[in-house]
Amino acid sequence: MRGDGEAPLITFLSDYGHADEFVGVCHAVIARRCPRARVIDLGHGIARHDIRAGALALRAALPYTPPGVHLAVVDPGVGGQRRAIAIRVEHDQRILVGPDNGLLALAAQALGGAREAVDIGNSPERLQPLSATFHGRDIFAPVAAALADGAALEAVGEAIATDGLTTLELPQARREGERIVAHALGSDLYGNLTLDATAELAAQAGLAAGVEAAVEVGERELPARVGATFGDVEPGRLLIYEDARGALALAVNGGSAAAALGLRGDDEVVLRRR
Amino acid sequence: MRGDGEAPLITFLSDYGHADEFVGVCHAVIARRCPRARVIDLGHGIARHDIRAGALALRAALPYTPPGVHLAVVDPGVGGQRRAIAIRVEHDQRILVGPDNGLLALAAQALGGAREAVDIGNSPERLQPLSATFHGRDIFAPVAAALADGAALEAVGEAIATDGLTTLELPQARREGERIVAHALGSDLYGNLTLDATAELAAQAGLAAGVEAAVEVGERELPARVGATFGDVEPGRLLIYEDARGALALAVNGGSAAAALGLRGDDEVVLRRR
Amino acid sequence: MRGDGEAPLITFLSDYGHADEFVGVCHAVIARRCPRARVIDLGHGIARHDIRAGALALRAALPYTPPGVHLAVVDPGVGGQRRAIAIRVEHDQRILVGPDNGLLALAAQALGGAREAVDIGNSPERLQPLSATFHGRDIFAPVAAALADGAALEAVGEAIATDGLTTLELPQARREGERIVAHALGSDLYGNLTLDATAELAAQAGLAAGVEAAVEVGERELPARVGATFGDVEPGRLLIYEDARGALALAVNGGSAAAALGLRGDDEVVLRRR
Repeated sequence: MRGDGEAPLITFLSDYGHADEFVGVCHAVIARRCPRARVIDLGHGIARHDIRAGALALRAALPYTPPGVHLAVVDPGVGGQRRAIAIRVEHDQRILVGPDNGLLALAAQALGGAREAVDIGNSPERLQPLSATFHGRDIFAPVAAALADGAALEAVGEAIATDGLTTLELPQARREGERIVAHALGSDLYGNLTLDATAELAAQAGLAAGVEAAVEVGERELPARVGATFGDVEPGRLLIYEDARGALALAVNGGSAAAALGLRGDDEVVLRRR
Repeated sequence: MRGDGEAPLITFLSDYGHADEFVGVCHAVIARRCPRARVIDLGHGIARHDIRAGALALRAALPYTPPGVHLAVVDPGVGGQRRAIAIRVEHDQRILVGPDNGLLALAAQALGGAREAVDIGNSPERLQPLSATFHGRDIFAPVAAALADGAALEAVGEAIATDGLTTLELPQARREGERIVAHALGSDLYGNLTLDATAELAAQAGLAAGVEAAVEVGERELPARVGATFGDVEPGRLLIYEDARGALALAVNGGSAAAALGLRGDDEVVLRRR
Repeated sequence: MRGDGEAPLITFLSDYGHADEFVGVCHAVIARRCPRARVIDLGHGIARHDIRAGALALRAALPYTPPGVHLAVVDPGVGGQRRAIAIRVEHDQRILVGPDNGLLALAAQALGGAREAVDIGNSPERLQPLSATFHGRDIFAPVAAALADGAALEAVGEAIATDGLTTLELPQARREGERIVAHALGSDLYGNLTLDATAELAAQAGLAAGVEAAVEVGERELPARVGATFGDVEPGRLLIYEDARGALALAVNGGSAAAALGLRGDDEVVLRRR
């Protein structure tokens, strides 16, 4: 899948955190099954069980990685009825491995959609005995390693219909004349809020760089400015900007936009010129 | 120690955390001494100075790693009288490197016991000047790298008796008729409590999947259910399950068992059918 | 820059933290531009936007790494007027890549000073479209990868004068007879305080191992002892020691020296024999 002689690539994203040996054990399992694979950690600090945050991070990261096998585990339903899957997407023959709970859905869609999918819950590659709570180690990592090692998709699982895969619905920002009606998709450690709008949509409502704007949440209205970086507004002031993932976002210079606005996931927020 | 042409493997576990450059500097030292070594981080988030937590994590992780040199540093006595050691264990010729404070003891025992041991405190491989507080960088990492590079055990330290190595005592769960008298070995970030019992022992007391149970701590008694995953009990309810390391454990679905039970390390907890 | 057949080395230090995909995406960008490069993370837990903490960590780490390309990103002015630079230093032909805000200054100085420098803000290696807030991904990582791949400095940026590079001023400890007048440079997670003095300077004031000392901060005076490790003082007592970076430092055995002394960055602290 890469140039001759190059190591096959696995990327790895999860919500396992760094307090115990879980991430390291998955690396170990991969090294046993496919010693020549190279593993790039895309991050393991996704908020625990936050499938949407994981799906957004995966979609944001994959365009920057070389093609390979893309392992992702945010898995609140582990040990229950959710399927474990591997899917091949249209672009670059990339393969995504993880739980079928929507985590892979946004990335798969951005990569042209799933072309083939297999259920790997009973994969011959899985470790035995299978634990009820750590499928990252027992199913996902060994299957990802086998695929990186060249195993065919049909050799690691049973074919399933791609149109039955779990999807992930996101709210949809819209323009209403001079107003953008958007929603908070989530916030980062610093309280910067990602919206479901693009800078392009904002520009259609006249919200271009340098413009003075208003942000409405429920009954409240706060002044803001459209800019590129935190330094474009005074400390404590609200900034509307395009974040590193290409999404419209809200920040407070030196503070927390999430706290200032009291916004939570999916809450509606209106942006307009002032 | 691995197939021809494969990079020698070093695994690395510590309590150094991620706030500063300590872990990275150890990687750097390894790369200078043995550039072809591959390093797999088994985790650096062990609670600071918690030798037992490190020993349990190491024992849990090593069965999943390829054989190699296994570096571990949780070292409250650094700079004091404790010895620095490298030991070769029975299984797979694996080598463990770290302080002689019990950190390596559980893993060594699980791998068939120490066959040879050397004191590496004055190793010719150590860095000079030797710091008093960072033996990970100055002793353990360079010695691990030398061993991965093929150095003989006797070349990196002075032979010592394997029966004088520091051991680590754990409490021992026991069955008393229909009751399991167990102890808390520790808890993770989410308040899930690892016990010193196995699911096998629990089954001998009739505690099999689906059974309604009681958990007694001192005067208190809480209802619980034996299950496989958090989803097997209602939110807020107590679950008895086998954790990913194969130990019996207690969790609260969506909460903290450690907080709910007020349990700390080595406290006694009794489990029985209800 | 290393032996024949060895992978080129990139080290990477930042304040990106581990909560999202930022570090992983930079790794991915490097893997696309220079698949054979090996990346050693020197740590990503530098306090956010703390240029001095990053500069101190980088200076402390580089003497332990093999020569290579040394990428560092702590970049509060991203998207603003600060330059993005790559510099070649005197020792080992090492190359440092990062923002021109002082972050690279201490390491460059310790490595013999900058011999050549280029402004990489408009590098042909940068990713397009260029984001305003994530130059680690869009400028620094791809330029570092190109340099690791063998690109010449002048091929990735425009030559600039080395004497116009941003410097970083640190306070300077001094001896006044039997007293050391020092300053707090920062503290770690555990409240251990790094000073701007060396153990050598302290010894000139009679502060050698085992000596009973006094630490004065403003009007307050606390007893302390000069030692090598935490175990050299009773729990709760103040220790004066040489830390792993070779700097004089203050710690409280089992506690926080920063809290005990109420010291913050650049505050003056006086040490003397008692």
